[in-house]
Amino acid sequence: MTIWIINGPNLNLLGVREPEIYGNKSFDHYIEELRERYPQVDIKYFQSNIEGVIIDKLHEIGFSADGVVLNAGAYTHTSVAIADAISAISTPVVEVHISNTAKREEFRHRSYLTPVCRGVVMGFGLNSYEMALNSFIM
Amino acid sequence: MTIWIINGPNLNLLGVREPEIYGNKSFDHYIEELRERYPQVDIKYFQSNIEGVIIDKLHEIGFSADGVVLNAGAYTHTSVAIADAISAISTPVVEVHISNTAKREEFRHRSYLTPVCRGVVMGFGLNSYEMALNSFIM
Amino acid sequence: MTIWIINGPNLNLLGVREPEIYGNKSFDHYIEELRERYPQVDIKYFQSNIEGVIIDKLHEIGFSADGVVLNAGAYTHTSVAIADAISAISTPVVEVHISNTAKREEFRHRSYLTPVCRGVVMGFGLNSYEMALNSFIM
Amino acid sequence: MTIWIINGPNLNLLGVREPEIYGNKSFDHYIEELRERYPQVDIKYFQSNIEGVIIDKLHEIGFSADGVVLNAGAYTHTSVAIADAISAISTPVVEVHISNTAKREEFRHRSYLTPVCRGVVMGFGLNSYEMALNSFIM
Amino acid sequence: MTIWIINGPNLNLLGVREPEIYGNKSFDHYIEELRERYPQVDIKYFQSNIEGVIIDKLHEIGFSADGVVLNAGAYTHTSVAIADAISAISTPVVEVHISNTAKREEFRHRSYLTPVCRGVVMGFGLNSYEMALNSFIM
Amino acid sequence: MTIWIINGPNLNLLGVREPEIYGNKSFDHYIEELRERYPQVDIKYFQSNIEGVIIDKLHEIGFSADGVVLNAGAYTHTSVAIADAISAISTPVVEVHISNTAKREEFRHRSYLTPVCRGVVMGFGLNSYEMALNSFIM
Amino acid sequence: MTIWIINGPNLNLLGVREPEIYGNKSFDHYIEELRERYPQVDIKYFQSNIEGVIIDKLHEIGFSADGVVLNAGAYTHTSVAIADAISAISTPVVEVHISNTAKREEFRHRSYLTPVCRGVVMGFGLNSYEMALNSFIM
Amino acid sequence: MTIWIINGPNLNLLGVREPEIYGNKSFDHYIEELRERYPQVDIKYFQSNIEGVIIDKLHEIGFSADGVVLNAGAYTHTSVAIADAISAISTPVVEVHISNTAKREEFRHRSYLTPVCRGVVMGFGLNSYEMALNSFIM
Amino acid sequence: MTIWIINGPNLNLLGVREPEIYGNKSFDHYIEELRERYPQVDIKYFQSNIEGVIIDKLHEIGFSADGVVLNAGAYTHTSVAIADAISAISTPVVEVHISNTAKREEFRHRSYLTPVCRGVVMGFGLNSYEMALNSFIM
Amino acid sequence: MTIWIINGPNLNLLGVREPEIYGNKSFDHYIEELRERYPQVDIKYFQSNIEGVIIDKLHEIGFSADGVVLNAGAYTHTSVAIADAISAISTPVVEVHISNTAKREEFRHRSYLTPVCRGVVMGFGLNSYEMALNSFIM
Amino acid sequence: MTIWIINGPNLNLLGVREPEIYGNKSFDHYIEELRERYPQVDIKYFQSNIEGVIIDKLHEIGFSADGVVLNAGAYTHTSVAIADAISAISTPVVEVHISNTAKREEFRHRSYLTPVCRGVVMGFGLNSYEMALNSFIM
Amino acid sequence: MTIWIINGPNLNLLGVREPEIYGNKSFDHYIEELRERYPQVDIKYFQSNIEGVIIDKLHEIGFSADGVVLNAGAYTHTSVAIADAISAISTPVVEVHISNTAKREEFRHRSYLTPVCRGVVMGFGLNSYEMALNSFIM
Repeated sequence: MTIWIINGPNLNLLGVREPEIYGNKSFDHYIEELRERYPQVDIKYFQSNIEGVIIDKLHEIGFSADGVVLNAGAYTHTSVAIADAISAISTPVVEVHISNTAKREEFRHRSYLTPVCRGVVMGFGLNSYEMALNSFIM
Repeated sequence: MTIWIINGPNLNLLGVREPEIYGNKSFDHYIEELRERYPQVDIKYFQSNIEGVIIDKLHEIGFSADGVVLNAGAYTHTSVAIADAISAISTPVVEVHISNTAKREEFRHRSYLTPVCRGVVMGFGLNSYEMALNSFIM
Repeated sequence: MTIWIINGPNLNLLGVREPEIYGNKSFDHYIEELRERYPQVDIKYFQSNIEGVIIDKLHEIGFSADGVVLNAGAYTHTSVAIADAISAISTPVVEVHISNTAKREEFRHRSYLTPVCRGVVMGFGLNSYEMALNSFIM
Repeated sequence: MTIWIINGPNLNLLGVREPEIYGNKSFDHYIEELRERYPQVDIKYFQSNIEGVIIDKLHEIGFSADGVVLNAGAYTHTSVAIADAISAISTPVVEVHISNTAKREEFRHRSYLTPVCRGVVMGFGLNSYEMALNSFIM
Repeated sequence: MTIWIINGPNLNLLGVREPEIYGNKSFDHYIEELRERYPQVDIKYFQSNIEGVIIDKLHEIGFSADGVVLNAGAYTHTSVAIADAISAISTPVVEVHISNTAKREEFRHRSYLTPVCRGVVMGFGLNSYEMALNSFIM
Repeated sequence: MTIWIINGPNLNLLGVREPEIYGNKSFDHYIEELRERYPQVDIKYFQSNIEGVIIDKLHEIGFSADGVVLNAGAYTHTSVAIADAISAISTPVVEVHISNTAKREEFRHRSYLTPVCRGVVMGFGLNSYEMALNSFIM
Repeated sequence: MTIWIINGPNLNLLGVREPEIYGNKSFDHYIEELRERYPQVDIKYFQSNIEGVIIDKLHEIGFSADGVVLNAGAYTHTSVAIADAISAISTPVVEVHISNTAKREEFRHRSYLTPVCRGVVMGFGLNSYEMALNSFIM
Repeated sequence: MTIWIINGPNLNLLGVREPEIYGNKSFDHYIEELRERYPQVDIKYFQSNIEGVIIDKLHEIGFSADGVVLNAGAYTHTSVAIADAISAISTPVVEVHISNTAKREEFRHRSYLTPVCRGVVMGFGLNSYEMALNSFIM
Repeated sequence: MTIWIINGPNLNLLGVREPEIYGNKSFDHYIEELRERYPQVDIKYFQSNIEGVIIDKLHEIGFSADGVVLNAGAYTHTSVAIADAISAISTPVVEVHISNTAKREEFRHRSYLTPVCRGVVMGFGLNSYEMALNSFIM
Repeated sequence: MTIWIINGPNLNLLGVREPEIYGNKSFDHYIEELRERYPQVDIKYFQSNIEGVIIDKLHEIGFSADGVVLNAGAYTHTSVAIADAISAISTPVVEVHISNTAKREEFRHRSYLTPVCRGVVMGFGLNSYEMALNSFIM
Repeated sequence: MTIWIINGPNLNLLGVREPEIYGNKSFDHYIEELRERYPQVDIKYFQSNIEGVIIDKLHEIGFSADGVVLNAGAYTHTSVAIADAISAISTPVVEVHISNTAKREEFRHRSYLTPVCRGVVMGFGLNSYEMALNSFIM
Repeated sequence: MTIWIINGPNLNLLGVREPEIYGNKSFDHYIEELRERYPQVDIKYFQSNIEGVIIDKLHEIGFSADGVVLNAGAYTHTSVAIADAISAISTPVVEVHISNTAKREEFRHRSYLTPVCRGVVMGFGLNSYEMALNSFIM
């Protein structure tokens, strides 16, 4: 079973910046932990700050992978193009967010992606990724 | 560890009605399965069609339970009073939905509850409840 | 043939209050007149001021009765939960209003119930109920 | 007692077009049935696709007829002029629709006519006309 | 000097209907009074309830007359087509209203015609017509 | 003179919860103080979390009491049904709020109740109740 | 007969500024012409750039003058206070504008004053004032 | 193959008015050129300024013609009735505009017709008609 | 204890105008009554129709007085500048209105002042001032 | 004559994916057919999923090519930057869409590109491209 | 070179109030520093809390000064009249704000002044004034 | 001191295109002039048409540079992702625009970037960059 975790813009800064505050557990490190906990799953990881490159990746893996866990970051609220890519591929996509976006600015309350994703997990910190991953195993 | 699963209006009809179509696994039956899978958790269940009775229940259990998994059904979109109850209690609440509400009517796109809940899990059928339950254990 | 007439909030005050003005024909009295005029129909009556209790009643009678004539009063404009109950049951529901709500405040112009009801009769005073009842006989 | 049934744009196509699908009961035929069922009422019929011609007709019959049953079709949602004509005449007008317009596009949810009509009957197919007619007899 | 006064829908009822209330001075009579007071102006009059017929008339007289005094009635608020006709012709048009439309329903607050007319006179009863006529003479 | 103080959803938690923080003066205690300060007034108290039960109470006491001081809590912003109950009864109602709702979320800026109440007192903490009570005595 | 012409903000610049372009006919000069043409009317003139000073003036003359011709300039679109002053006085007020405000920015399309004025004359340049003056004489 | 070109309000003025500016090629002349260029197509032409007459024409030819090229002019933005006529007939309709309506006033940005037409061609001057005609031949 | 009562535009007309209707109790007279009833409070009074003069007064007294009772009249709905003055000073301000503004035009439903005031009292006629004054004494 | 056809996000999947359903005519193949049919035109093709890369290409070819046929896909509805690029270049651009976007989600009804393009062709399947190409030849 | 710095409502409180917190550098003091730093510029200063007095000042100096640096405070968001004054004068005006208004309440996000000013400088504290001043020298 | 000037989409065309009209002073040339005028500052320059590449650059330089002068062009109005990047980095960012965007289309009136930038300078042509640069030196 192959599951891709795809992160969108600015999520590359997680765990890298200000290590004295956030610790030095980078997202790469978190991925390693997940892989250890889910040895039965082939967990792939991709990040880009470029909307179109995320679309390219979805096209590339979206007809063969078993699932995608997607945190599209700010593109969640502005990208019709990523939503179209999710519609076009056959692999099911689960939308995740680290924070509870309903507690933030109003423009973050609309997601173009939710209507074309299977489901949403948000607000549980990094655990949101694992919960979404679990949805493919249950 | 005590976790309450609270269901709002019309969710009492799940599994009861039209058994030849939906099978005869009622929500009570689903709760039993969850209890077997999570013996370490004391899983309580409550359902009401009455907004104020749900508030009463949240007040009653909301200062001692370890977590609430709440599917407020249609009250999600109209009840400021349930949102206020969630704010008033100390037990964390996770919002769940069986369906992906973003695929439905526009008036279902607004949740009064999300800004006062810890997080949201939606779109995974009955599995949404288990994923939310898991968030308290992780 | 069994038809339920269900009245929502504040409609219990009809005919009871200020008899010197409105006469002493209560809604119970009106129901009696209807029963005399339609002996071939088993006309049942229910009223509640509580949204969730109306839902309970719809669940209870909504898989066996032949029709429901529903005046949900103010809940017409605010209750997604009653609309969901109407969708969930198999008995057809006709929405009625005594007054022409389009002549009143703007928040009364939206009905959550109309899209899930079979039809609407409004503006004909108490006659609206009889016209709706007739729709099940025609 | 004289009651006019007035149909607006596109309603001339009812029953005429595609008879193998919709049967060959035209609206004229339906009017005949109504006349047989209500011999005590002088039922008149008029149809036009032209907004101003409908206004002309309302002016012509609106100070002598006992009632108008009006299905203004699409003009319901766009014609302030027909609404003004209804206000100007003394004959009461009842608005009817064959379908439940609340189930259709959002621009069909607003009726300029409802606030100036006595009442509304909608969603009961051709029966909507008979129910509206009845409201003048009850 | 030739000035056309053009009245839109329902304005044919002025002075004709309910003479015991409004007196029996019809609009035709009012036109006669204007003609007497302004012998130097050739005052023409036209009324139609049909939007397109008003457009036909504007096309017909709109390249030779010296001015048009237009009370488009309810079409003021809904007719882009009449606005386009006013733009297309070379004769200047002045918009008039008998009542002060800002005191009426909100949908009467928007005029499609004002931006393409030379000016507006409204709220002065029948005097609005004479004031508009005067604007061509001053 | 009989004045009812009616509290809506979540207001039962006032003074009960977290006594080390808010003191142990419950709302019941506050009512006692009011009764001592206003011996000439028969002060009655009622609280419910259920919208329809508040309506039942308004019907019950709304034709005999001299005044109602109503803090409908979150139902202020969502309940057309309570507004209709206030309109239906003859006892005047004064709306109160402990906090200044204009400083809170935007959905708390609309009150369905204000247009049918005599007046509003808000923002003065528990003193709001006494000021409203005073309005019946002045 | 005493008629006041009151001009609001920035209208003091009319005719004063850039005489080589706009000619040296100031508004004071225009008033003189009006006085000559209407010897039977006592025409008074007042201008201020200060909202409250215009209100003071309306209070001062608004219970004795026979009419007010008011061009409130930009305050037309923002001043509820001037609208309230017009409502409070007994002298009728006619709103005028030199330009056709419907051809300008959208925020100029709303007038707080129109609903409390007798009528409106706009778009006829300085002639708008004379037409409005005439409305008091007709 | 029979294709109808139908023009709505004000389009009768094309080429007729101001020949020294627009040349003397009328729309009739343009139709002639099209007929010469497409001898294999029977090109019919109809124009009316009256909304309902356009509907009459669509009904008349809409079950036998092979295609309709429709420039509904201003009715594009206001006529639900023409949209309903397009839905009711079986002949496919292509919407055309001479100008690019997106460059014009905001109320021209909404077309009631587009959702019920096969496609749209706009912005190419008179060539828009030929391009639309071509779509039936390709 | 020094409390200022400040009245905004048009409130100078209270009690002065039409004494045969409203009696001859002017606001000055009302102030006198208040002073007699509250000898322990130094009650000051100020009124202006000029927005900026009200701001000047708030600046002048807003760092030394114990409280301000402010009825800003129409500026309540349009003045960000008075709201900023209230924020800038240290004396607490209570907003009052004689009428219940929620029963009036929609543009009176928004108050720029409420979010920066301590509380609101409205709808109790002149008593609103005394109730607000009381809030500083309780 | 050089015409560029530029496709935006997700349009690379056309004809490639699910060949058993959509056939194996890829867009590259379609381009070949166009080139055969229009030997007199040098037809160039470019596709990218990246908004900024489409802008780079428009800059590169937008001062020398004779025309651009642009299907910007989802960027049509979200990209002010592509609209600015079209404005900045001198080559005229025609907007095309395969489907009729007016039949789809509301967020697809707004195009940032239309106001800066010469015209629009949409709804004709792949033929939309050829029709747009033709507009440069006519 | 003569440059006016004009401050609107509440800005007179800068540096005067609460000196222990904000220091005792008043705006007058800041003006002095600017004058020392820019000896080649004749820097004039004016402040008023009254909208119309600011307009009077703009009229007075707006045909002779070389530039105006305007911080209209709260009038920025409500004053069409000041915007009109800026349009009417010939001296260019630069809008400044001490704070970044985009970080504050939504009603501060709209400026009536920006479209008629040359440019905007905001968010740099008192430095905003100097940067705006510089724009006239560069 | 290191300051980056970053330009967004289409700004690469400045000064390059149509040199006979705009002169041949490219933005590179302007940067050179700035560097000469500010020898004490290390001025770096970067431009990209790709949203995500601008984010990459902000990440790369945003923890070490002393300031960023950002003209994000059209992305100003659509990019939540760039706004998030500005929030994530520690280097302060100043938003600049060459034109006064408030004078342009309404969709350019909203900036996602302003609330996360230190301040804004706009409307001064290329001087906007130098004024923003100055804000880091003052």
